[in-house]
Amino acid sequence: MESQRSKSGEVATLKELKREFEPYSGLILDLDGVIWVGERPIAEALEAVKKLRTLGKKMLFVTNNSTRSRRDYEKRLRDLGLEVDINEIMNSGYATALLLKERYGGGRTYVVGEKGLVEELEGQGLQVISREECWDNGADFVVVGMDRGFNYWKIATAMRAIRQGALFIATNADKTFPSEKGLLPGAGTMVAAISTASGKKPDIIVGKPNVHIFEIALKKMNLRKEEVLVIG
Amino acid sequence: MESQRSKSGEVATLKELKREFEPYSGLILDLDGVIWVGERPIAEALEAVKKLRTLGKKMLFVTNNSTRSRRDYEKRLRDLGLEVDINEIMNSGYATALLLKERYGGGRTYVVGEKGLVEELEGQGLQVISREECWDNGADFVVVGMDRGFNYWKIATAMRAIRQGALFIATNADKTFPSEKGLLPGAGTMVAAISTASGKKPDIIVGKPNVHIFEIALKKMNLRKEEVLVIG
Repeated sequence: MESQRSKSGEVATLKELKREFEPYSGLILDLDGVIWVGERPIAEALEAVKKLRTLGKKMLFVTNNSTRSRRDYEKRLRDLGLEVDINEIMNSGYATALLLKERYGGGRTYVVGEKGLVEELEGQGLQVISREECWDNGADFVVVGMDRGFNYWKIATAMRAIRQGALFIATNADKTFPSEKGLLPGAGTMVAAISTASGKKPDIIVGKPNVHIFEIALKKMNLRKEEVLVIG
Repeated sequence: MESQRSKSGEVATLKELKREFEPYSGLILDLDGVIWVGERPIAEALEAVKKLRTLGKKMLFVTNNSTRSRRDYEKRLRDLGLEVDINEIMNSGYATALLLKERYGGGRTYVVGEKGLVEELEGQGLQVISREECWDNGADFVVVGMDRGFNYWKIATAMRAIRQGALFIATNADKTFPSEKGLLPGAGTMVAAISTASGKKPDIIVGKPNVHIFEIALKKMNLRKEEVLVIG
């Protein structure tokens, strides 16, 4: 699994792309900062990806953003003119759901995160419980992602469950992310608050640059790491 | 300024207290963990303090809790049978207000904290601004204390102002505190989130165990540190 930084502004010819990607059976493309920056798509990157698709390689679009579901991303990429399948999308929420399902089978999960994360976890059979239920009876997993509904009582509930033994899982640890409003707090900020209150660092951080999301991506693509090029 | 841990369960005689406190003109008493634990007052400590008051020493009751105003504490201590004056109470909110007033004169202040903190800051002439006003025009100071109304957009607003140059002041950095509901997130948890998002540690942490609150306490008592015993 080699890694290559995209050089924005340069659009390669199909022939150049063919030669460059010859050794690889699959490509992992980072959506954040490659296909778009914040909400703004990068036209050159979209053109390059359209060409890449004609090479017949397996492709997987990866993002640390857990607030949207894969379904949301499928729609968004299609709206940008890319014919993608939902199975070609891996966000940190889906990766977290796959990891928990494969490693632990399932469990009662308290989510500090948005709708897209809940959708992915429930999609893999995890039992997402309410704050009240978690406060009263604890949880097997506390999953923390970016959450614009983050508040004091979510921290208190998460810390309580973690101190009682729940596994502490972060979808990703990006401290901030760029948006049209400027830089905003990312999942890493929520994770820092809950870590401080619970006196414990996350047991698992799933997203980039951690290895978990890449391992799950390779499994999903059914390829070995030598066969894949990461563009991000 | 010497320090002495209170030994709970032992109630000294007045004669013993007189001899022990002979060298000191003033006493600083920690409310948290000495006079009460969480919301529960400690009867033996209250009895000892009543005796101490007959020695004619200057006294100052100190707490890191910024959610209540000094007025609230005055009432609470009077309800427990201690005849205290508001000038004998120093909470981290009041200490923060005095520090900002004395060191900087005043300034536009965005508060991540509760009503008691706002009351103390305004009481010293600081201009407390709304979240919207801070988002649009920044602030001179971002003051962060314990806040049960803590949420995502407060973090976003604080981080934005701090990244634009506002001074970052923490009333205290206690990660958690004991309550009747069990351990809850303290001001240090709010501080950790805002530090992570803003990429900056607080410029000043006012409360115990930092030196600021003690320096402000000595000034308030008009005593030198050799003249004061800290019981906490």
